[in-house]
Amino acid sequence: MNFNYYMPTKILFGPGKLDELAQETLPGKKALIVISSGNSMRKFGYLQRLQETLREKGIAYAVFDKILPNPVKSHVMEGATLCREEGCDFVIGLGGGSSIDSAKSIAIMAKNPGDYWDYIGGGTGKGQPIPNGLLPVVAITTTAGTGTEADPWTVITNEETKEKIGFGNQDTFPTLSVVDPKLMLSVPPRLTAYQGFDALFHCLEGYIANIATPISDMYALRSIELVSQYLPECIANGDNLEARTNVALANTYAGFVQTESSCTSEHSMEHALSAFYPELPHGAGLILLSDAYFTFFSTKIPHRFAMMAKAMGVDVDSLPEKERPRSFLKALGELKEKCGVSDLKMSDWGIKPGDIPKLAVNARETMGGLFEMDRYRLSLEETIEIMEKAYR
Amino acid sequence: MNFNYYMPTKILFGPGKLDELAQETLPGKKALIVISSGNSMRKFGYLQRLQETLREKGIAYAVFDKILPNPVKSHVMEGATLCREEGCDFVIGLGGGSSIDSAKSIAIMAKNPGDYWDYIGGGTGKGQPIPNGLLPVVAITTTAGTGTEADPWTVITNEETKEKIGFGNQDTFPTLSVVDPKLMLSVPPRLTAYQGFDALFHCLEGYIANIATPISDMYALRSIELVSQYLPECIANGDNLEARTNVALANTYAGFVQTESSCTSEHSMEHALSAFYPELPHGAGLILLSDAYFTFFSTKIPHRFAMMAKAMGVDVDSLPEKERPRSFLKALGELKEKCGVSDLKMSDWGIKPGDIPKLAVNARETMGGLFEMDRYRLSLEETIEIMEKAYR
Repeated sequence: MNFNYYMPTKILFGPGKLDELAQETLPGKKALIVISSGNSMRKFGYLQRLQETLREKGIAYAVFDKILPNPVKSHVMEGATLCREEGCDFVIGLGGGSSIDSAKSIAIMAKNPGDYWDYIGGGTGKGQPIPNGLLPVVAITTTAGTGTEADPWTVITNEETKEKIGFGNQDTFPTLSVVDPKLMLSVPPRLTAYQGFDALFHCLEGYIANIATPISDMYALRSIELVSQYLPECIANGDNLEARTNVALANTYAGFVQTESSCTSEHSMEHALSAFYPELPHGAGLILLSDAYFTFFSTKIPHRFAMMAKAMGVDVDSLPEKERPRSFLKALGELKEKCGVSDLKMSDWGIKPGDIPKLAVNARETMGGLFEMDRYRLSLEETIEIMEKAYR
Repeated sequence: MNFNYYMPTKILFGPGKLDELAQETLPGKKALIVISSGNSMRKFGYLQRLQETLREKGIAYAVFDKILPNPVKSHVMEGATLCREEGCDFVIGLGGGSSIDSAKSIAIMAKNPGDYWDYIGGGTGKGQPIPNGLLPVVAITTTAGTGTEADPWTVITNEETKEKIGFGNQDTFPTLSVVDPKLMLSVPPRLTAYQGFDALFHCLEGYIANIATPISDMYALRSIELVSQYLPECIANGDNLEARTNVALANTYAGFVQTESSCTSEHSMEHALSAFYPELPHGAGLILLSDAYFTFFSTKIPHRFAMMAKAMGVDVDSLPEKERPRSFLKALGELKEKCGVSDLKMSDWGIKPGDIPKLAVNARETMGGLFEMDRYRLSLEETIEIMEKAYR
């Protein structure tokens, strides 16, 4: 019952909230708008709507539109250079987690010397303190996946060293975030599933992490409940606004969980997978690992697994106590089936059985901190064992 | 499902957390410490501990020790003058809600011209915008009552006009709050009860308010549950740290509820009572009104009353649907009995039956905004009716 609470982001949540951005005080006079290299922000008119709002408010802007699904350091550095050259004094991330995470990292590098990896802890990062703070960040999320609009984290891949590392501190929260589920109606089913499961794993891991707090527990269990109830419908009927809204809420809660608690080593293992295989979506990577990972931990902290099963809708009270933790694994499997992601295989993305030891070492070297958040400390051998069991 | 979320205060929560203040960056070089006119902050050594921490951090301080249980405007003005004269650049409220609320209001007046009532909306307040912002505020709460450490609100009485009015905006959150339940072990039983019920009513009202959000609902129901479970034990055994910690958590959650939702007109009516009868503790005033108030509203929003009953431990699912709302009233009555506050009478504080119409008018004129938060809009006649039914 000892914890610190800090979540300073102002969040506008709900269908139609993007329109309210016009009434908000934005934290600067010229924005760098960061979007993905895909065409969806233009195709669905989200970029144009944002630009129009900025024009109405007399705020200038430049656009940086190169962000990849697994965003890379070179784009952070390039975006930061553009930001300085254009004289932008704040950064808007518009899109999914990759664009918003990149906006955070660009906001750091726009004000600080050297290379982004100078400030990264873990792997080959130099872990130096950030001397000059960062530009304010506004997050407008068009997906329900990473929760980055409600947490301080940004995950960037160093493509040269194959390191995918999360970073954040008390200054890297967005100043203002917009979560408008109407913007999510256009996300295709498969991506909806990957992102929804990403939110789910943020909460599952945050709930079994050893730094979980009463507040993170409350958000985590409610979010698990919402994803379990509404994600299948979002995949089946993407234009169901009520379902989209509930999964968006679950995702924002997942951000709170990541703020007040932490991911665990499942995320470290996934970062290794998608650092080496950048075509692998993060949520898919987590799905690939999850059965083996949670099976391993289900015997370590049975009570928390029973609570997660309950949040997923299992009538755990009617089960013998020793069956309750396993009922979570069954519920997780069923949710994957309902969402059409139960057949994913590592080999679909070209991962080879022989890669596993290297990937396990990478997970521990680049994201070793999250192994310290597990309630049972995994050895390298156990890390390999989990990843091998997850291999198909 | 449309709401804005903003709660920027950093909170250190848990037994022993006051010691961690030494590791925090405080928002200035010289503090005005605001404490009550009673001797408890000195008697229990809390003031000395805070002063020692400040000295160790090289932070100077002055002390303003005049705050009354129902804090008054003249002390806000006097504290602000001292703050300017001493050159303090931040304010620390140490104590219960009255000291912390006063710290917030002093932090406003230390930087702004004129009279505090120039900035107050409602009653005879002029509702002017605050031109110069306010000094940063640190809150160290030694009671579990108002939740002011986790919300932007400050309630001050204008003793000349008999107006007790809440005020706050996005800038009046504490920068940093310490909630250390060890500091609450010394609160005597009767005060513990009044404060615990204040927290409870913040959540009950916040749950039935028409601007409740999914987030405020979650905090409200959990807080109602915690108060119901642990407040009687805090009163019976004040040194039970586990019970104190759970009620402290409930109170911090109540602050979140007040931040994300709102009080309703019960609070307006209570402010009228304690504006005219300043010896009446705020929590006691709410207890006096509560049965009549919630009885009136129980038929207006039955589902929410059933949920509150459930949070109080009633097995509502086993009851016929139409009995569920009333089961809340029974549970509230039982909690009052367990906490030794079921026999309070308005007449104990000298309130006369003939006062009621005047008090009802005062409630509506000074705190009319909260009547707009009710899901059913009370007329003056109904306000009088509720207050008369509450009279004993």
